[in-house]
Amino acid sequence: MVRFLVLYEMPEDPAAFDKHYDEIHVPLVKKLPGLARYTVSRNIVSLGGRKYYLVAELDWETRQDMQAAFGSQTGQKAAADVSRFAPGDKSHSFIFEVAEV
Amino acid sequence: MVRFLVLYEMPEDPAAFDKHYDEIHVPLVKKLPGLARYTVSRNIVSLGGRKYYLVAELDWETRQDMQAAFGSQTGQKAAADVSRFAPGDKSHSFIFEVAEV
Repeated sequence: MVRFLVLYEMPEDPAAFDKHYDEIHVPLVKKLPGLARYTVSRNIVSLGGRKYYLVAELDWETRQDMQAAFGSQTGQKAAADVSRFAPGDKSHSFIFEVAEV
Repeated sequence: MVRFLVLYEMPEDPAAFDKHYDEIHVPLVKKLPGLARYTVSRNIVSLGGRKYYLVAELDWETRQDMQAAFGSQTGQKAAADVSRFAPGDKSHSFIFEVAEV
């Protein structure tokens, strides 16, 4: 499983962020080809210094599947959409393989 | 599902970090009561500015299960162990419920 993890910092306007995220971004992401699992978490408790408002996890079976999704028209739309509700460096994204131990 | 997400920054000595993590920390964590799933990821690709060396995810069915595990003797040992391979503010931990959308 390959995961795309996105950590969103606290938005200026949480209500506007939530509205855009839930009504526009989620439906877009759910159209990504091959997406195996998509979770969205709020109410993040931080045990260290860094605080985040929302954590999204998008899983694909393989890295090739993820790359195909990112390269698709929906992938490009979803990436462009992020700048509309989380401008600048307010989101932090990571890709890694998920290995159970 | 409730997740404990830990992001470890790049260690001073990656080989020593890996040895301690794999040989001491993983066996400790795996003994945590009620742990439903434990994944460890390396080779983290960062698409933004923040870089991490290792991502660990520990899942429990409920928040109560997680709290019981953290309060157990193994939980206290595992927490204390972190300071031995990731001192100071080199790790960032978050707790949140995982909701599929």
